[in-house]
Amino acid sequence: MGIIVKIQNFIVILFILGIGISALSAESPMNEPIQPIEAVVAENPGMVELGKKLFFDPRLSKSGFISCNSCHNLSMGGSDNLKTSIGHNWQEGPINSPTVLNSSMNLAQFWDGRAKDLKEQAGGPIANPGEMAFTHELAVEVAQSIPGYVAEFKEVFGTDKISIDDITTAIAAFEETLVTPNSRFDKWLMGDKKALTTKQLAGYKLFKNSGCVACHNGSAIGGSSFQKIGLIEPYKTSNKAEGRAAVTGRDADRFMFKVPTLRNVDLTYPYFHDGEVSTLKDAVDIMGRLQLGKKFTDEENVLIVAFLKTLTGDQPSFKLPILPPSSDKTPHPKPFG
Amino acid sequence: MGIIVKIQNFIVILFILGIGISALSAESPMNEPIQPIEAVVAENPGMVELGKKLFFDPRLSKSGFISCNSCHNLSMGGSDNLKTSIGHNWQEGPINSPTVLNSSMNLAQFWDGRAKDLKEQAGGPIANPGEMAFTHELAVEVAQSIPGYVAEFKEVFGTDKISIDDITTAIAAFEETLVTPNSRFDKWLMGDKKALTTKQLAGYKLFKNSGCVACHNGSAIGGSSFQKIGLIEPYKTSNKAEGRAAVTGRDADRFMFKVPTLRNVDLTYPYFHDGEVSTLKDAVDIMGRLQLGKKFTDEENVLIVAFLKTLTGDQPSFKLPILPPSSDKTPHPKPFG
Repeated sequence: MGIIVKIQNFIVILFILGIGISALSAESPMNEPIQPIEAVVAENPGMVELGKKLFFDPRLSKSGFISCNSCHNLSMGGSDNLKTSIGHNWQEGPINSPTVLNSSMNLAQFWDGRAKDLKEQAGGPIANPGEMAFTHELAVEVAQSIPGYVAEFKEVFGTDKISIDDITTAIAAFEETLVTPNSRFDKWLMGDKKALTTKQLAGYKLFKNSGCVACHNGSAIGGSSFQKIGLIEPYKTSNKAEGRAAVTGRDADRFMFKVPTLRNVDLTYPYFHDGEVSTLKDAVDIMGRLQLGKKFTDEENVLIVAFLKTLTGDQPSFKLPILPPSSDKTPHPKPFG
Repeated sequence: MGIIVKIQNFIVILFILGIGISALSAESPMNEPIQPIEAVVAENPGMVELGKKLFFDPRLSKSGFISCNSCHNLSMGGSDNLKTSIGHNWQEGPINSPTVLNSSMNLAQFWDGRAKDLKEQAGGPIANPGEMAFTHELAVEVAQSIPGYVAEFKEVFGTDKISIDDITTAIAAFEETLVTPNSRFDKWLMGDKKALTTKQLAGYKLFKNSGCVACHNGSAIGGSSFQKIGLIEPYKTSNKAEGRAAVTGRDADRFMFKVPTLRNVDLTYPYFHDGEVSTLKDAVDIMGRLQLGKKFTDEENVLIVAFLKTLTGDQPSFKLPILPPSSDKTPHPKPFG
């Protein structure tokens, strides 16, 4: 009797659990190592609009030619699609420009995680002599000389005196809106079984079962940990970036890089911190061998690439911002001086 | 009797004429040397959308970094706000980048008019070693390698084989939409007497009566003729541009440049073909002395500048285009090679 009751209870529990799971799968993402991205509703639309202008404004650079959007081009997956970026005076950048899309989900910013958040990151390139080559002081002086910005900072921050802190806060607020929901894979996660083809689904299963999800997981499918590139086999590159070691000073952190997001990976070529890999095919092959000790067959590679291409979401959609004009007091850009 | 009938007829004619004039002034621009800009309705919206993408696409340059929008930035009055532009490998451009806004109204393109229309112009920078440093052949090869473009060219031009002719036709179609109606001055021209302040109107009258309209007239307030810079007094510059002479080979055409449009002139600093003049105040002063032999007083200068600032119209308003991604076959950009 006791056993029968227990079995009956067990069946009831299983039944309830079953209903629970069905209910869940109808409304919520399935129990997968990857979660869908949710659209962001801007908390402070005025700040986002101001940040958008600053993001597109080359006057925050010494030359007056390079803006955030130059290397994180929102027409091109939030990246520049170059191996490494072009900086002031056509300097060759040291590392591949990571996409700004979904970057708010990263545990830290830059490949080596040296900035704790988007606000801290935003100040970096402005003052980096190899990138925008300006100073925070001059960036503030430029913004303060532009009547349209003065009015907008007043409106958003309630201040007459613009600060670099306000500038980077606004840029970060804009960047936080740059998420890409509604990818085919997210639709599948949300319960639309027709959103993926058989091939794409097989690619996802292979991606999951091969261990790729050990690092590429969560909403951003990456960005949540630092990992060593070249875990099983060493990664060979002429690129001098040391990764996390440059921040921590610890030898153990050499070649530890932030795992990049795979969201929109079809748009963010070329790949890896050195941008040396042009195609998803090659990227999958190298990751399999170097990180997992696994040689994917051509057929397997095709399936995983087919899955990766389902990760392209709705790109941020907004009107090209019109920048407030300089005044006679605005310091002149110095592209050649 | 005969005379009385004739006088009566004359009065009737005057009366009818009066009604006619009133009706005209309510609906049409007044009889002024400057005409308002009319909004453009795109004849072929698909072609305009394609051209917009191409206009923003840096893959039409050798580096993969410079697009039409780099030097004709639609966030910044269709110009780059630099003295002279930055080209491939950070080369210093020879001349100030003219605004693309309302450029369809120009009698010819470039400062020296060497391109007869926007289509011909669009091909220039792509292949100019000092600008985008590409070739037409490579630009076509890149476009042809991008499936999204192949589909769009097929849709718009009905062809599977993209040509430089189709590329520049599409870019020109987009540029033709870049007009800026509804400036305060245009509202005044259309009969809204409150659109200008007393000061701005006084500035316009001074502009007109001083002879500025001899060159700056028509809808674009310029762009309709070539004129010598330094007519009364020579214009001193270290800039080597020869103007129209470079096209015609005639010595008489030295320093003959296309008269720039004054539409949106508050946004298109710095001024003149060499970009050596930063402020409207200085530009008005120099133009008065060199072209008209007239020294405007400070008060007059202020009035004319106030008028010029009423020429900023509605800036083109559209969503930032999302570019179709490259394929594995797309030739790689060569920023440093």
